[in-house]
Amino acid sequence: MKKIINSLKIFKIGGGIIDDEKQLNQFLEDFSKVEGAKILVHGGGRGASEQLKKMGIEPKMVDGRRITDAETLEVVVGFYAGVTNKTIVAKLNRFEQGAVGLSGADGYLIEAKKRPVKDIDYGFAGDLDEDSVATDILYTLLFNGYLPVICAITYDKNGQLLNTNADTIASAIAKELGNDAKFSRSEIKNVELHFCFDKKGVMRDINDESSLIPEMDFEFYQKLKKDGIISDGMIPKLDNAFEVIRSGVKSVYIRHASNVNSETGTKLI
Amino acid sequence: MKKIINSLKIFKIGGGIIDDEKQLNQFLEDFSKVEGAKILVHGGGRGASEQLKKMGIEPKMVDGRRITDAETLEVVVGFYAGVTNKTIVAKLNRFEQGAVGLSGADGYLIEAKKRPVKDIDYGFAGDLDEDSVATDILYTLLFNGYLPVICAITYDKNGQLLNTNADTIASAIAKELGNDAKFSRSEIKNVELHFCFDKKGVMRDINDESSLIPEMDFEFYQKLKKDGIISDGMIPKLDNAFEVIRSGVKSVYIRHASNVNSETGTKLI
Repeated sequence: MKKIINSLKIFKIGGGIIDDEKQLNQFLEDFSKVEGAKILVHGGGRGASEQLKKMGIEPKMVDGRRITDAETLEVVVGFYAGVTNKTIVAKLNRFEQGAVGLSGADGYLIEAKKRPVKDIDYGFAGDLDEDSVATDILYTLLFNGYLPVICAITYDKNGQLLNTNADTIASAIAKELGNDAKFSRSEIKNVELHFCFDKKGVMRDINDESSLIPEMDFEFYQKLKKDGIISDGMIPKLDNAFEVIRSGVKSVYIRHASNVNSETGTKLI
Repeated sequence: MKKIINSLKIFKIGGGIIDDEKQLNQFLEDFSKVEGAKILVHGGGRGASEQLKKMGIEPKMVDGRRITDAETLEVVVGFYAGVTNKTIVAKLNRFEQGAVGLSGADGYLIEAKKRPVKDIDYGFAGDLDEDSVATDILYTLLFNGYLPVICAITYDKNGQLLNTNADTIASAIAKELGNDAKFSRSEIKNVELHFCFDKKGVMRDINDESSLIPEMDFEFYQKLKKDGIISDGMIPKLDNAFEVIRSGVKSVYIRHASNVNSETGTKLI
């Protein structure tokens, strides 16, 4: 019973929502009401770090990036692909969403490369390149009415599991699906990516929610950046988002997780 | 691209193989050579208990059954659905097996009921009944050329994850698929279940491998049981296996994990 899918929405949620059970439950209920084909990509949350602490292991971070040794990898895989992924899947299926959890290893979804050791050895961290994402398993699930729920664990060609950034995963999947749409390699015509976080969107003044920028194209973004209006922390996110758009994704939204089912937020075109 | 599947082999491996990396790698390589459609169900292994110990929590067991409190559940889900499942999936995909890991929550596969509290409160333990298994997600994956790899975590209708025995899961899935075959509800004509463990099969004398019983039907089993030839530990396994056969599974094999790709073992018909 193959489903007809014209448009596809990819959502990414971060650790902040996952750590707060009430917020997570509300998000998943709202997300369940989003109509049409969709994919959810989720980050990890604090659970892994807390478990490492209970085991007497201090989480090791350099510039906000986790150093993943073998012991850390085990806990991270357990949390991201196990606890967090299955908790989300089980909760979504209460709302009859047909959720199926995936890591990058499942169905060859994302083959990464272990990050090469230069100044810093990041351990079992996986970097993606243009050939990393294989979309077949996603189409199989989507066209049969299932909802892929993807965690940020990848693997390499040696069968080694690796830890990868969830924003990177969401962007890479969106790019590949958007590219398929652009060149009519799938029946899906329209791919959107929604980054859900704890701000209303991109604002002229980070402390003033009424300064929300509702829509932005690349030219306007360049102007705002030149005028110093976009904050430093937002620049890599937006650079990345416009790269996703160039790959064939129709629009990227940056919005608060509580607005998942409304139009509020910043739309990048 | 729908695959034609006439027969399906379901394999169950226990914790013993999973705990020994060399044995696991050898098993997965052998298993990869098994031709045709297949499903792998795996137990948990000692990893979860070891991690609980590192966290200063003693595993609680009553009559060989784990008492699963909230903290234990988190570790068990992390290990079974995360570490163990994804390690097996990543290793299998080195051999181009198209492995996709599933818990009972994924695609509504297995809805259990939290075990009622009587003399003992087993905590988050999930019991199955006749309506627990929904095979749609398995058919979707199998007919698209994927290999389902299933861990022993289930969920209930409230979205609560639960811990369930892996033999029970393998039997329940085999029964449902066998029943579909029996009543021509699927295109699969022939379903087999293979229990792989650390013995060659069912033996007349547990200490003498040459006393292996190569084939057994229900009548012969009753005779051997009456004569006191079947050891006590084997009786529940065999009672359960013959129940699986009655449901429509063509044959159940009890064999050593190292003989997965040979005819050696005990065949129950």
